[in-house]
Amino acid sequence: MADSVAVVWDGERAVPHDLATPLLRADDGAVLRGDGLFETLRTHDGRIFLLDEHLTRLASSAASLRLAVPPAAAWRTLALAATELFHAGGGPGDPGATALAGNAGQDGRLRLAATRGPAGGAPVVYALLEPVPPAVAAARVTGVDAVTLSLGVTATGRRDTPWLLPGAKHLSYAVPMAAQRFAEAAGATEAVWVSVDGEVLEGTTSSVIAVVGGRAYTPPPAELGLLAGTTVAAVARLAERAGLTGGVTERRLALDELRAAEEAMLVSSIRGVAPLVRLDGRPVGTGAVGPVGVTLRDALELAVRRGALD
Amino acid sequence: MADSVAVVWDGERAVPHDLATPLLRADDGAVLRGDGLFETLRTHDGRIFLLDEHLTRLASSAASLRLAVPPAAAWRTLALAATELFHAGGGPGDPGATALAGNAGQDGRLRLAATRGPAGGAPVVYALLEPVPPAVAAARVTGVDAVTLSLGVTATGRRDTPWLLPGAKHLSYAVPMAAQRFAEAAGATEAVWVSVDGEVLEGTTSSVIAVVGGRAYTPPPAELGLLAGTTVAAVARLAERAGLTGGVTERRLALDELRAAEEAMLVSSIRGVAPLVRLDGRPVGTGAVGPVGVTLRDALELAVRRGALD
Repeated sequence: MADSVAVVWDGERAVPHDLATPLLRADDGAVLRGDGLFETLRTHDGRIFLLDEHLTRLASSAASLRLAVPPAAAWRTLALAATELFHAGGGPGDPGATALAGNAGQDGRLRLAATRGPAGGAPVVYALLEPVPPAVAAARVTGVDAVTLSLGVTATGRRDTPWLLPGAKHLSYAVPMAAQRFAEAAGATEAVWVSVDGEVLEGTTSSVIAVVGGRAYTPPPAELGLLAGTTVAAVARLAERAGLTGGVTERRLALDELRAAEEAMLVSSIRGVAPLVRLDGRPVGTGAVGPVGVTLRDALELAVRRGALD
Repeated sequence: MADSVAVVWDGERAVPHDLATPLLRADDGAVLRGDGLFETLRTHDGRIFLLDEHLTRLASSAASLRLAVPPAAAWRTLALAATELFHAGGGPGDPGATALAGNAGQDGRLRLAATRGPAGGAPVVYALLEPVPPAVAAARVTGVDAVTLSLGVTATGRRDTPWLLPGAKHLSYAVPMAAQRFAEAAGATEAVWVSVDGEVLEGTTSSVIAVVGGRAYTPPPAELGLLAGTTVAAVARLAERAGLTGGVTERRLALDELRAAEEAMLVSSIRGVAPLVRLDGRPVGTGAVGPVGVTLRDALELAVRRGALD
């Protein structure tokens, strides 16, 4: 397995950075206040999946946060440099490795990040590439177990509160991390946010798909102030080609509908399509991975391996 | 004016750290996910105000976040080392400065922070001490102008959602920072969170006090899931001694009460008691700094200068 690698954008080029060497100042806004942005992408065998889509969302997060980040071309260079370094089989300490040696089938988690920087200073812009944890890959096959947690808002409550940064992928993830710990304390592995008026919003770090009456639905991000998932959008494009009647349609979902769904899935860049087989301790559908989940998961994994949607 | 200083806890002792040298790894949870905690304290002429109270709250945040941090004695050593270094007149590059030389009256912002660290690694524990920005000190005299922003929840909505980390002082401050930018875009300098059912919650980085019918009130943190302010608690203790009838009482406040208040204040460690003279573009009370605000502000500033409440 390849070691994790870091690559920093120095304003003009991508420079490999030894991960064990500190990179961020003690007074960087990202450290002191979680003030910065990121995107998480999947790489496979040196190919980056959905890079354009993630760079579009990154630009949108930068606008929300009023963070001055480099143009897309710089991010692209940075992402490619990190991917080449990682999939070449090692970090900066392993310069002699040949391309892809020992990394056939290697699945990577690529993070692109920009920090606020110190007061009056500039953002630190970098890429981090780590192996996808084996448990995450395994969950695509075995399915995952989730609990629901209230986000304390009505379903449409976040749409009109742009200061709460709905839909921005910022570095302030203490709450999703805490939600994850609550899920684990309850014996599950994932958490799904629900509204106080009984609607399904999103996973803490994923989008939700539910199969109701033979059709696949996902809650509408723009209407509900959710993060617009790049992966769920890709899955929706793949669904019809994979023969799923109606594809994946955006529609608001009552929590009761999710509980009674024939199948459900959690979708994100790194986990791909993970079948949701238990919710709040009760089985979803048959409690086993179902046919729609398999179809969507396999269509996505094939696209990831090709490195392209089409 | 003293330069900012950083001091790191190495597990056994407090070690000065050159602020310009990076301290945090690119894969530290505090950088990637705002996963960590902090406390902000005021120092004055080498004295730290409310250290015990802040260390108590720090321990409570660590429990909320399940973060393994050093015991209070270590934090105390770290805080004292940073304070001595800062108020001695310089950073690590100025070891020959005599105690307090050139720093009489120097007002400091001391931050104690602990990060999650890299996966499988240990938290980074450090103190940062910077001068209080002159504009913050000036606002105690001139008053501040705020806008209200909805937090999208009911007044009691956060009390029963511990996964949203109400009352924990974590490093995920992207939302308060965004609220600040919204306030500035509206021509104000501060923002006050209100509930969807029309109650006053807290400032984005402060507690709120309103004077209604000659009595001073602040919204109850435990009942509303607010951060329990150490400074507002200190102000409440000082209020009766300063001759304010009824002191400062915890009571829920309707937004309409704040709008119609005789006076109002925003209270936090660094700003102290800042009179709130305008809200959403309209004057609060006479629109000038009022007598209760002056009494509470001066009582607090005197205590800060003494370095103790009593």
